Amino acid sequence: MKTIAEGTVASPQGFLAGAVYAGIKTAAEGQRDVGLLFSEWPCAAAGVFTTNRFRAAPVHWCLEHVRKGQAQAVVVNSGNANAGTGDEGYRDAAQMAALAAERLGLQPPDVLVASTGVIGVPLPMQKLREGIRSVQVSREGGHQFTRSIMTTDTFPKEIAIEVSLARGRGVIGGVAKGAGMIHPNMATMLSFVTTDLAVEPAFLQEALRAAADLSFNMITVDGDTSTNDTLLLLANGAAGNPMIYHGGPGAAEFQEALNHACIHLAKEVARDGEGATKLIEVQVQGAASVQDARLVARTVAGSMLVKAAIYGNDPNWGRFLMAAGRSGAALEQEKVDVLLGDVYLMKQGQPQAFDQEAARLSISQKEVAVRLHLHLGDGRATGWGCDLTEEYVRFNAEYTT
Amino acid sequence: MKTIAEGTVASPQGFLAGAVYAGIKTAAEGQRDVGLLFSEWPCAAAGVFTTNRFRAAPVHWCLEHVRKGQAQAVVVNSGNANAGTGDEGYRDAAQMAALAAERLGLQPPDVLVASTGVIGVPLPMQKLREGIRSVQVSREGGHQFTRSIMTTDTFPKEIAIEVSLARGRGVIGGVAKGAGMIHPNMATMLSFVTTDLAVEPAFLQEALRAAADLSFNMITVDGDTSTNDTLLLLANGAAGNPMIYHGGPGAAEFQEALNHACIHLAKEVARDGEGATKLIEVQVQGAASVQDARLVARTVAGSMLVKAAIYGNDPNWGRFLMAAGRSGAALEQEKVDVLLGDVYLMKQGQPQAFDQEAARLSISQKEVAVRLHLHLGDGRATGWGCDLTEEYVRFNAEYTT
Repeated sequence: MKTIAEGTVASPQGFLAGAVYAGIKTAAEGQRDVGLLFSEWPCAAAGVFTTNRFRAAPVHWCLEHVRKGQAQAVVVNSGNANAGTGDEGYRDAAQMAALAAERLGLQPPDVLVASTGVIGVPLPMQKLREGIRSVQVSREGGHQFTRSIMTTDTFPKEIAIEVSLARGRGVIGGVAKGAGMIHPNMATMLSFVTTDLAVEPAFLQEALRAAADLSFNMITVDGDTSTNDTLLLLANGAAGNPMIYHGGPGAAEFQEALNHACIHLAKEVARDGEGATKLIEVQVQGAASVQDARLVARTVAGSMLVKAAIYGNDPNWGRFLMAAGRSGAALEQEKVDVLLGDVYLMKQGQPQAFDQEAARLSISQKEVAVRLHLHLGDGRATGWGCDLTEEYVRFNAEYTT
Repeated sequence: MKTIAEGTVASPQGFLAGAVYAGIKTAAEGQRDVGLLFSEWPCAAAGVFTTNRFRAAPVHWCLEHVRKGQAQAVVVNSGNANAGTGDEGYRDAAQMAALAAERLGLQPPDVLVASTGVIGVPLPMQKLREGIRSVQVSREGGHQFTRSIMTTDTFPKEIAIEVSLARGRGVIGGVAKGAGMIHPNMATMLSFVTTDLAVEPAFLQEALRAAADLSFNMITVDGDTSTNDTLLLLANGAAGNPMIYHGGPGAAEFQEALNHACIHLAKEVARDGEGATKLIEVQVQGAASVQDARLVARTVAGSMLVKAAIYGNDPNWGRFLMAAGRSGAALEQEKVDVLLGDVYLMKQGQPQAFDQEAARLSISQKEVAVRLHLHLGDGRATGWGCDLTEEYVRFNAEYTT
């Protein structure tokens, strides 16, 4: 597994991308707001979507069309989420697919759709129509595509890696956008992953679900989840490898590389949470089950008091303990170890007379590792979050509806 | 039901209270930190406690002794939570009960114990010993007792009401402290309720649980729950009424008055959340079940994005909708109404062209009412929270371990 410098979603063979500015975002918000991702060959397709009961129109479109396990393009816009827009919203999402299909020589069901931005405002279809018709896709257009899904993100989130199999090799590329409303089980989070490996569709869906559970479903910014979360994976087989299927040759290597790409993107999303200054990594081991470990990791990473303490460089183990205690996971207080980096704050439930200087140093880093060992079983999990700052509050209080 | 002006936990007949400053808090934090609440007669006793898996030592003590349904006093301190303090903590809690029992002429099991403040630091027992020995209890000491449990609270939270029954009348008094870590299912929340009515112990527990479910379990400040949450109810029968039992005469009137007192105290706690400038009331009706209504009310009241929007006076119905959607309750988007006060923001799932001026006026009040009608069934619930401010972040980032 090797990272490709400056790699994008268009790094795998046969993928082209591009974007334009169509005036849906304000110019101050960014220079691209309509993007296309296109494969020169039909792809196996998989998707994981928001768990929010209110789903935006493009999510309905994707759910309907990803089911057949095949697609060939994705059309995206930022600046308007096409959510809470009723029947008109669904027609607009279908229209976006139709416009992209027309532009790319496909059928509308071959095009998946994603939108992000304000809720409850009809899509400006005239701008979208002009935008989609003017997008040029190319091998170099990946970075532009990345820009086209950014909203309050402060930096682009991209990755591409080379994957070596026993027979053949391929590339996985990926892009994500995040910022607010990031939470376990997905949030205002869009991510698109591409690969030129040939992967059997049912296994592709299974692998994507597994990767999401280790990555996007283990991050939290503020506990809120959006109506639009979408993670899509397209595999076009251009690498010419023998088809990868469940349990077959290359399946483990593919899963590992996919996990790596998704975890990288998810951590970048957490790091770039609204107003965040630090990435928080919560490593849990010794839980009674993996499910329990996941609960503890996500609850600690998502606790407002933990997040504020880490922002303030305060090694307040009481807050880590309190958050673990309310997670719902099995815990026995007299067994729990709590560490900040390598510094034991609590051992077997007893507060330690820890080195304040070392603890402060550890918590002052841009990446803060909180570790809990429950000493109850073999369950392990890692979750990620970010600190809570005045800037988060200011940003979300000043948001203009 | 009539409110008694300046009423306290010592307003019901036969209850005495008092407090001293023993140097456990800094002088800047407040002038009382050790308090006693005493009934001249034995009381029926009931309690509801934190759901956090890590329970502070005094909670263990109370759980053990409230079980018998009888108690006669409560000893409290602020400045130190006696949590995460291991076996020594339990011995200290027992010692607090013993010291209070000695002072009041009781046996230690007759004394319930509550502590609030920093976690993981052993109780300063010498100070507590001197403090408990010097507390004077009186009918006028209720306000002092109230002060003795305050931590980051900015105002005292007290109530007393007269209850008229078909046969006889009595008084219910109550006190609470809150601030951070308030969340459904209790938080760094202490509340003590007293009554001179005679109530059968099993019904007392049942009534307290029901009242907690409508009040303290419907408020949220930041989603975190503490290790120390304690709600206690003592009934000494000094009013001379015929014993109130489940389904018997006066039971409904007693429950109604108890609910009223607990809801008042819980709202005061939510209103005084750390850094809060507003009380948020979320009224849900038409849910498929009461359970679903509770889920929606608590999730909307607890959403960071909702809280920040209300702080910023932004009538962002997309956030109310998003929070309702992730609550787990059954919802059909095309049926949902969302109102801010009396202003429809969304009707049957369709965004409304609402009067911006009226909406801004409604959201700018010190008490903001968010109403959701799901049109699915008869489930109703009301939840309370507070807005999220920069001050909350500053406060919790600067907390000194």
